[in-house]
Amino acid sequence: MAGDPDAFGDSAAILLGDLCLVWSDELLHAGGLPPETLARARPVFDEMRTEVTVGQYLDVFAQATAHTSIELASKVARYKAAKYTVERPLLLGAALADAPPSVHAGLSAYGLPLGEAFQFRDDVLGVFGDPAQTGKPAGDDLREGKRTYLVVAAFEAAGDAERAVLEARLGDPALDAAGVAALREVIRSTGALDRTEARIAELTAVALDALATADVDPEAREVLAELAAAATARTE
Amino acid sequence: MAGDPDAFGDSAAILLGDLCLVWSDELLHAGGLPPETLARARPVFDEMRTEVTVGQYLDVFAQATAHTSIELASKVARYKAAKYTVERPLLLGAALADAPPSVHAGLSAYGLPLGEAFQFRDDVLGVFGDPAQTGKPAGDDLREGKRTYLVVAAFEAAGDAERAVLEARLGDPALDAAGVAALREVIRSTGALDRTEARIAELTAVALDALATADVDPEAREVLAELAAAATARTE
Repeated sequence: MAGDPDAFGDSAAILLGDLCLVWSDELLHAGGLPPETLARARPVFDEMRTEVTVGQYLDVFAQATAHTSIELASKVARYKAAKYTVERPLLLGAALADAPPSVHAGLSAYGLPLGEAFQFRDDVLGVFGDPAQTGKPAGDDLREGKRTYLVVAAFEAAGDAERAVLEARLGDPALDAAGVAALREVIRSTGALDRTEARIAELTAVALDALATADVDPEAREVLAELAAAATARTE
Repeated sequence: MAGDPDAFGDSAAILLGDLCLVWSDELLHAGGLPPETLARARPVFDEMRTEVTVGQYLDVFAQATAHTSIELASKVARYKAAKYTVERPLLLGAALADAPPSVHAGLSAYGLPLGEAFQFRDDVLGVFGDPAQTGKPAGDDLREGKRTYLVVAAFEAAGDAERAVLEARLGDPALDAAGVAALREVIRSTGALDRTEARIAELTAVALDALATADVDPEAREVLAELAAAATARTE
């Protein structure tokens, strides 16, 4: 073998990612849908893929600048998660079905706040969740030092001692169980967990209010209400 | 700032590449073409993008294994360059124009061998070309150690002294003008340059033969003949 094995692995991974992106197009186009139907779906599909990529960049940027702002954490959640995971898929369906603008508006009004709530729930579970349920090791987000809404809220309200713990432990690749426990305690004592739970509840309420008046049929309304509950539940 | 600057740069570059891939789709779909026309183009477009990505992986793989086979070098040229740069774009045009199968067959029979010849010409210029014309520093391919048809041919015919030069100098990031000169000399003395020029001429002849009988109109035949000359010319 020749050359740097890490570089080979990086190159292969990047190319595989490109293939997956190309194949996602093929999935859409080889699904047997008529060309006119696909033509309606394309702009939503492209916007969705642009938004998630830009959102991911915002996330990387926020981590690199160690930027601790609630507004930026919310914006990252909106582009990287809310639009990509909830809002745009709903709008994709609406476009495929040639639904009128009122349906699109209702789905957005429901999907965007729900998507943000979903991301914040995921952030809380990433710190406090049971690995047997979340499927992730406890404290992985803390080990990575992710500047989530939850963590940013902790920084904003931290006193000197709490800030010292955050700055010492957050992002430490060698973070152990004691370190995870210490960070969890600070996230509680600063009120960040309560603040995040309140925000999740607030956003979920906004989503469900929008759903109540959205121009969708009763079966859809029922399914979307269940989705909202599942997406924001405290345990998986 | 926080974290590893190189990792930040890598992440940003990967995301920008993804954006460009998504935008290439938008270019195709936002060009004002009717949905049925686009539906004909999509399979060619997707195949093209899959082939170039797989070809790029083959290239990375060949470099990593330091695999010195004329067959593999030709295959890389076929997927990474011939299909992507010449054959598939022609077939994309034929699909958009709803041309009959005979036109597609003629364009492939012309495009594939021409594309390989074009890549081998690019490889020769990469080693022997004038930077003022090629736009690349002299010997960049040698510095990278790229296992091109030209280089593989040199290895295949190398005697002990020639092999020693190849193994010592190829892929040396600090390769200087003397090193470039030494490698050029070995590529000549092993007959690799002559062999590659002969292969370029052979492939170009096959392409032009196919063009002579291809089911295309006279104006296209003329333009494609000029393209073949331009793609395989010894100087830019």
